[in-house]
Amino acid sequence: MVSALLFDVFGTVVDWRSGVIRDVAELARAHGAEIDAAAFADAWRAGYGPSMDLVRRGELPWTKLDDLHRHILDQLLARTGLTGLSAEDKNWLNNTWHRLDPWPDSVPGLRRLKENFIIAAFSNGNVSLLVDMARRAGLPWDFVFSAELFRHYKPDPEFYRGAVELLGLPPSEVMLVAAHHQDLQAAAAQGLATAFVARPAEWGPGQHPDRAPRGDYTCTPSDLEDLATRLSDG
Amino acid sequence: MVSALLFDVFGTVVDWRSGVIRDVAELARAHGAEIDAAAFADAWRAGYGPSMDLVRRGELPWTKLDDLHRHILDQLLARTGLTGLSAEDKNWLNNTWHRLDPWPDSVPGLRRLKENFIIAAFSNGNVSLLVDMARRAGLPWDFVFSAELFRHYKPDPEFYRGAVELLGLPPSEVMLVAAHHQDLQAAAAQGLATAFVARPAEWGPGQHPDRAPRGDYTCTPSDLEDLATRLSDG
Repeated sequence: MVSALLFDVFGTVVDWRSGVIRDVAELARAHGAEIDAAAFADAWRAGYGPSMDLVRRGELPWTKLDDLHRHILDQLLARTGLTGLSAEDKNWLNNTWHRLDPWPDSVPGLRRLKENFIIAAFSNGNVSLLVDMARRAGLPWDFVFSAELFRHYKPDPEFYRGAVELLGLPPSEVMLVAAHHQDLQAAAAQGLATAFVARPAEWGPGQHPDRAPRGDYTCTPSDLEDLATRLSDG
Repeated sequence: MVSALLFDVFGTVVDWRSGVIRDVAELARAHGAEIDAAAFADAWRAGYGPSMDLVRRGELPWTKLDDLHRHILDQLLARTGLTGLSAEDKNWLNNTWHRLDPWPDSVPGLRRLKENFIIAAFSNGNVSLLVDMARRAGLPWDFVFSAELFRHYKPDPEFYRGAVELLGLPPSEVMLVAAHHQDLQAAAAQGLATAFVARPAEWGPGQHPDRAPRGDYTCTPSDLEDLATRLSDG
């Protein structure tokens, strides 16, 4: 019997790739620069895991995701043709991660799920990023669990345990909903229920690393509306 | 220029006294006990400050508010005529603090304020208490700052500083809205803007410790709807 649902955000609830491409392309157009916005978005995201690893291994002190994103961005800008940006432009571009659009089923699915379950973001994004995103996209979170609250990035077990403790529930009453196997496996290792939602468009054409269910998940809905239907039918 | 509003919850947004009286009276009726539900509610609340002081002075390790409430409740029950309660009854009664009703202006005021500002709970209540309350009462928080996140109760400065840091804003862009001088003075000491909202009914008839503005507050609205009007008029 599940009481609370935790949602991975980047890729599972929002389409990070299209949003980043949109803003990179807009800024490039405004500066008359010719760049491959999709390659830029993919390179930016590719820096995400390694930069969190630096924190996880203690090679960097705790650093919130906005600052990791900015560090990767500065390196990328130095390598690409997108030069001459003002400080304001760079801040605006770095905040593209605050302005991501939800997948079409996300808001209607979350609204339905909220009627019967506590629904919470569970993300490596920092608090202000997740709050800005939720306000813009209309994500009706009851709570926002950010890695910043625990100073541990997923898949560190401290983050999963910390969220369960704050909910005041047994782990088995908490379900992680995610499009990524590593996240779900870390949740299952802490006793949480798991729902795998495939998001085949997350990585754009040609890359679908997490397209099919793998492992022994509690539930494998096709999207968040389907999850609402399955959980309400018991 | 304020960007985010933090709200004290008990007394400022919700009417704790009426809610506790309602549930104490209901349980007493069900058990045929004759007790003064208002005196019970006041005695329960009177234990709140001293129990947090034990944590603040390090005489108790970090203890969340649900557990402090339960400790005070157990002592009160032993002193009053309300005996023979089951474990389930006691849990239900302790959770009365999760089931408090908002003042009539709270939800409409918060909805209006949310259009232009980040709105967040800022309370000594634990996360699950505040989440349950918001779901039941329809409080449309963008975020819930609980003392539990920082393991520091108000008016410890760590709580105010911690919330401002997570918002990623300068303290002057954050306003605390509260019915209590101690809370507002602690916020002002950290550089936050302040709004005093008098809640003359908080303590019931005959006791109005924080009825009138005192000190140099940024704003002294009559209620949360008035705050929305004042802030939108700039």
